[in-house]
Amino acid sequence: MIPSYFSERFSVRNFQKGKVSDDQIAEILEAAMRAPTCGNMQLYSVIVTRNKELKKKLEELHFNQPAAQTADVILTICADYKRFTRWCEINNADPGYDNFHSFITALTDAVIYAQQIVTIAEMDGLSTCYLGTVNYNANEISELLNLPDLVIPVASIALGVYEKKDSQVERLPLESIMHNEKYRDDSDEDIKRFFTIKDNFIPNKTFVEENNQPSLAHVFTEIRYPKTMNETVSKTFMELLKKKGFLKD
Amino acid sequence: MIPSYFSERFSVRNFQKGKVSDDQIAEILEAAMRAPTCGNMQLYSVIVTRNKELKKKLEELHFNQPAAQTADVILTICADYKRFTRWCEINNADPGYDNFHSFITALTDAVIYAQQIVTIAEMDGLSTCYLGTVNYNANEISELLNLPDLVIPVASIALGVYEKKDSQVERLPLESIMHNEKYRDDSDEDIKRFFTIKDNFIPNKTFVEENNQPSLAHVFTEIRYPKTMNETVSKTFMELLKKKGFLKD
Repeated sequence: MIPSYFSERFSVRNFQKGKVSDDQIAEILEAAMRAPTCGNMQLYSVIVTRNKELKKKLEELHFNQPAAQTADVILTICADYKRFTRWCEINNADPGYDNFHSFITALTDAVIYAQQIVTIAEMDGLSTCYLGTVNYNANEISELLNLPDLVIPVASIALGVYEKKDSQVERLPLESIMHNEKYRDDSDEDIKRFFTIKDNFIPNKTFVEENNQPSLAHVFTEIRYPKTMNETVSKTFMELLKKKGFLKD
Repeated sequence: MIPSYFSERFSVRNFQKGKVSDDQIAEILEAAMRAPTCGNMQLYSVIVTRNKELKKKLEELHFNQPAAQTADVILTICADYKRFTRWCEINNADPGYDNFHSFITALTDAVIYAQQIVTIAEMDGLSTCYLGTVNYNANEISELLNLPDLVIPVASIALGVYEKKDSQVERLPLESIMHNEKYRDDSDEDIKRFFTIKDNFIPNKTFVEENNQPSLAHVFTEIRYPKTMNETVSKTFMELLKKKGFLKD
């Protein structure tokens, strides 16, 4: 039996005032460590930000989104090859983790850990929201949190208490996501059909109208995730990988 | 209350002969779609491999690991900006997702989805194992599964049935992973202490002896994840990103 939690869950962007105790956070972070991890290396760290002054600075780096501002705590999960690399050096072994593949490995490890935290926190009665903005100001977040070489912030989780029932947003149909045996080459008609649910979802329609855009797709390409922004972040993020030692050569 | 499943779980590398039904797979993949996703874009796809001939080829690309060979099904989860990009084009919007940042966004989305699949499948009575080898032969896996531009395989899950109780492997202490407010600069003594549990874990000690290595760290740097291998995979993976249109410029 699949627990009903999974099909009922949703992210929360406005938390209430309830506090999350340090004990509960530690319990969640500890239980989440049983998530799968590459070669049992645990290539991640998590920074718990709760201090008011520091959290305010972190909120600014997340563009003062309500989820960041109203959360009791912000968790910054990092891809971390520093601890493991230092352990190798202490043992006079020759670590070779200052490269792109190792970053991808640590990123994957860290996101698995992050998602395990989200699931456990939510099943434990809390609410969460990923702050996708973590990549945009990854440089500034790294400085604020004193992140050393071989440590890159890759997932931020706003954590808090929320009790009122909210409604879920739409999702694409399973058939658009799932491919049997090989990747299916969908026709334009198929793709249009898959996205009908998004195009017709009332809050999306309202957003399109309010922003005076010709379609929902334009909301994404012109307002939410425009090309120039993606290209700028590509550059700064790649520079951060270089600066932090993940692109040696 | 945190369900006890989370602190009791472990990955399985030798599955038994039990079959996983197509219905159960579809139920799991559908429920997992409620996982958080960036901007509700669902930047992932999953290829379900069950056909004997195709699965055998896929097993080879995963170096014939027992987990791949004994699994009933292999799921290949892909970072996928193709579906979303095509939808933008159909709507005459100008998508700008052929860049590194967009790949990282889709990778994160896909790994969140993958981990949600793992958790749901395990809570539904199945067992799983990530095949970390997905990055090593990402080019060949892409060809075998007909992956188009803007689609990159990023997580492979062996899925099957396992009933015998296994024992868990070791994990680092929470204090090594968790940082309060800012990243803590651990001393070498601290790092040695954190890793004591790994150094002393009997199966690890046996592995060190059998391979005639001076320390467990050497098992990682000389045998499991050596520098030259990481550097080779860095190159081929970066080439794949370029080939599939994620590094336009």
